[in-house]
Amino acid sequence: MAYEKKDVPIIVVKRLPRYYRYLSDLLNQGVTRISSSALSKKMGVTASQIRQDFNYFGGFGQQGYGYSVERLRDEIADILGLKNGYKTIIIGAGNLGHALANHTNFKKRGFTLIGIFDNNPDLIGKTIAEIEVMDIKKLESFMKSEKPDIAILSLPKSAVRDVAMEVYRLGIKGIWNFSYWDPDISIDVPLENVHLSDSLMTLSYNIAKKEERADK
Amino acid sequence: MAYEKKDVPIIVVKRLPRYYRYLSDLLNQGVTRISSSALSKKMGVTASQIRQDFNYFGGFGQQGYGYSVERLRDEIADILGLKNGYKTIIIGAGNLGHALANHTNFKKRGFTLIGIFDNNPDLIGKTIAEIEVMDIKKLESFMKSEKPDIAILSLPKSAVRDVAMEVYRLGIKGIWNFSYWDPDISIDVPLENVHLSDSLMTLSYNIAKKEERADK
Repeated sequence: MAYEKKDVPIIVVKRLPRYYRYLSDLLNQGVTRISSSALSKKMGVTASQIRQDFNYFGGFGQQGYGYSVERLRDEIADILGLKNGYKTIIIGAGNLGHALANHTNFKKRGFTLIGIFDNNPDLIGKTIAEIEVMDIKKLESFMKSEKPDIAILSLPKSAVRDVAMEVYRLGIKGIWNFSYWDPDISIDVPLENVHLSDSLMTLSYNIAKKEERADK
Repeated sequence: MAYEKKDVPIIVVKRLPRYYRYLSDLLNQGVTRISSSALSKKMGVTASQIRQDFNYFGGFGQQGYGYSVERLRDEIADILGLKNGYKTIIIGAGNLGHALANHTNFKKRGFTLIGIFDNNPDLIGKTIAEIEVMDIKKLESFMKSEKPDIAILSLPKSAVRDVAMEVYRLGIKGIWNFSYWDPDISIDVPLENVHLSDSLMTLSYNIAKKEERADK
């Protein structure tokens, strides 16, 4: 690869999933080429920002001719590691775990779900997304033989810390966590916490601000 | 209120839910006062950023004496509109809708779930989070009489656009949307899209980068 991932500013990296999403959408609509100005209009960012961002990865396009949507998406997929075929497991097969297992996008993005675990006897043995929910007691032997890359934790808050430590000990490469947990142990692997209520609170702020303005 | 919400930079607003989360956690642990330096250590941001951020809302504290955790959380709750008691409805009672209905945090954050809707006969009439799932056909009359503030959309991608337009037409104040949708209609209310796979792609990027470095 011509680019150096470590040189890409985090702010640019944060925009890549969004580019990937828009480009996938364009491809689905049959669009094969797009100019930075058309893409900028669609995404609500400036064309110069798009050009600047893409320059970090070699440019992807020709002046005046636009970008090849497929090539661009392909390169971004590569940068995001989506071609590495990361294997995921879900720990916690409740409603959220169930919803995540059926989230079709993850498969499209190159992730393969290879196991689902729970400690609830009512859930163990059930089939979700064509996978049989396994007893959490089998996690260790499963991880040793199947070597999943990413653990998706959809667990009660009280269980997250212990399970995160356990998958870390067993060699997981990354953790995608949906429960509130203020990491108080040093886990030397990438960890993404999804704080759903942060997004709801941001929405609430915007509603409150709009109401306050309307009152004036 | 002494502050003007409109003067708060969006970057500061974006940090408020996180402050709120940490302060709630501290309160649960029985911590009543905290210095900006202790809070900064806990949150991994600089103490001067915390002081700067809080200055937008009148400071909240006394030099050298620390912040009252409860008062601080209370003020932030006010700014975020959490005291407005926004009423929410969930449209789409599948696994994700189900998980969201049971997400205890939303209640703690001041939001009240008053209705759940679906068009699936297998789900209509079922009880989720003590609420009976209603037929989507009843949405209009329900919205007219109950006036919910926020619609939470956990729908198939193909249905999101129409339902968003419908709740907008019926006077919703804000939309919290979990399906991929590139808003192509002008909806003049706050809209928060949750893109779960963006977060998974960021995790993937961080794993890939780490692996690449290890290979060198």
